[in-house]
Amino acid sequence: MNAPNDTRPVIAMAMGDPAGISPELTAKLVALDEARAAAHLVVIGDARVFAAGAATAGVKADFTTIGANDPVPAARERPVFVDLRHLDPAAITRGKPSREGGAFALANYRHALERVKRGEARAVCFTPFNKQAMRLADDSYDDEIGFTAGVLGVTSPATEFNILEGLWNARVTSHVPMAEVPKLLTVDGIVGALEITAEALRAAGYNPPRIAVAALNPHAGDGGNFGREEIDVIAPAVAKAKAKGIPCDGPYPADTVFVRAKRGDYDAVMTMYHDQGQIAMKLMGFDRGVTLLGGFPFPICTPAHGTAYDIAGKGVANLGATRAAVLLAAQMARRADRA
Amino acid sequence: MNAPNDTRPVIAMAMGDPAGISPELTAKLVALDEARAAAHLVVIGDARVFAAGAATAGVKADFTTIGANDPVPAARERPVFVDLRHLDPAAITRGKPSREGGAFALANYRHALERVKRGEARAVCFTPFNKQAMRLADDSYDDEIGFTAGVLGVTSPATEFNILEGLWNARVTSHVPMAEVPKLLTVDGIVGALEITAEALRAAGYNPPRIAVAALNPHAGDGGNFGREEIDVIAPAVAKAKAKGIPCDGPYPADTVFVRAKRGDYDAVMTMYHDQGQIAMKLMGFDRGVTLLGGFPFPICTPAHGTAYDIAGKGVANLGATRAAVLLAAQMARRADRA
Repeated sequence: MNAPNDTRPVIAMAMGDPAGISPELTAKLVALDEARAAAHLVVIGDARVFAAGAATAGVKADFTTIGANDPVPAARERPVFVDLRHLDPAAITRGKPSREGGAFALANYRHALERVKRGEARAVCFTPFNKQAMRLADDSYDDEIGFTAGVLGVTSPATEFNILEGLWNARVTSHVPMAEVPKLLTVDGIVGALEITAEALRAAGYNPPRIAVAALNPHAGDGGNFGREEIDVIAPAVAKAKAKGIPCDGPYPADTVFVRAKRGDYDAVMTMYHDQGQIAMKLMGFDRGVTLLGGFPFPICTPAHGTAYDIAGKGVANLGATRAAVLLAAQMARRADRA
Repeated sequence: MNAPNDTRPVIAMAMGDPAGISPELTAKLVALDEARAAAHLVVIGDARVFAAGAATAGVKADFTTIGANDPVPAARERPVFVDLRHLDPAAITRGKPSREGGAFALANYRHALERVKRGEARAVCFTPFNKQAMRLADDSYDDEIGFTAGVLGVTSPATEFNILEGLWNARVTSHVPMAEVPKLLTVDGIVGALEITAEALRAAGYNPPRIAVAALNPHAGDGGNFGREEIDVIAPAVAKAKAKGIPCDGPYPADTVFVRAKRGDYDAVMTMYHDQGQIAMKLMGFDRGVTLLGGFPFPICTPAHGTAYDIAGKGVANLGATRAAVLLAAQMARRADRA
């Protein structure tokens, strides 16, 4: 029996790399009243790996367990566990990336995405992946964005957002050499990134969002003395985005824009290159933050930190970022259901 | 009469821009027992501008006043004021940059440098300048480094360090377009910057200093996938500097190097470009920090913040950074006297 006013969205929660803290984080998350109140959790993994994580975390989980091909049950009294029965924890050495571990995480994630694709869930979360393990399992694996686009058949631009306590960081370029960044900045590229960002912010309840656009050059180019990208590319992009109804301002000097955003002047900072935002976010404690994939038809969230192989199995892993990831996904999914 | 064990260095303290908080900061500084105990202060300015600052700050200063051409008196009971009699405060509008204000600050600073050149002082400090005002006064004025090099006849490379609570930031490139940064990074350029930095750190008492060198590209280039400057230029520079006895490590990813330095792993971070360090330092509160000019034969320190035109004359200006600038200059001058 379901409560008649149970509006909790279904979140498909994929277990990440089994050699790190992902199993214990998943177990702690399911044991958290706040998470179960915010979402109907459908955890995807192997029951044995989960049990090991629950033992490490010192928690108990009361699941309805189903198989890979079973639909999510209509009854919602308990969280659901989809047991893919694909990994014996004895095959995994704690703290070591392995092909088996990578295959486990990729299979869980793919299954989670497919549950949403079939309409059985509204959002996906996953506990930390290990990129090296995933590449061992699938040499076409580049990053989560490419993998997700492949599974979902999405060909339009996708990106990731880094979110720390209500402050979002988006970027125009990411894993490219710094020498190529100036050439990669185009008016349409920046407008496109602003569009995806504004859309994701609105989906998370920022209406209207307040987006600050960072400059590329020191002192925002100092009127063209230290570079012209602000004048030739970024300012025209901001103007074009504004004309399209995207609330944004800039370009602002990169060394003060995060100070202003941190004190609450903005909801998001659009950065021109990877480290511009990452230097700031990591200093502010982004390991406690959330990564959200943007440009996909539903929210996909994960804690910003990694697999923490050094503390795996000790039961000391902090649930904060995983909790924040699930609450953000639930909030966005609830809003989408209402829209 | 001087105390026989008075080892306080003489610091020439130039009053900065008169339209901002510089007059009140100078007055508060002279009234601070801790500053007078650390250094024998020789303040350079106009007695009327100082009196206005003292009135704003609500402090009294007990000076021995001398003229522009008088030597610093041997007696050290009181701080000394060198009255250049070159600015009536009535000529200045608070909160507005002016030619007169710029000329005042430049004359004070030049006089301070010349006092040290003549052996009458061991270090220079100055309260905040306004660049716009200084350019109005002297259209050859570019920045403090160029001006200082000109007055002192220094032609070897000079730089500036940003220092916040014991964490130093040095940089290889500064006010240049980002597109030029990769081309400007050379092994010898980075080694030279590391040499100046290690020398300044040693002069400030870091023996040996611990210097982290930042990478240029995201994830430090990810083994050459996102740029080769780490492999081709920065790592060879670090190796060459180490071979010369400069304690340094890297290149490290820029988005974690400040997190590590902040927690105490390093005394200094050598950054490859302006914003790489400034994003981090400003987020950490660098406005409370100190700027030290490096590559000159004596310490030159100033608070990192600006003229704060918005709060000038209100008596609320925070002395913290000015105090830190004077204490650092005094510490470095004392060590140089002992060496």
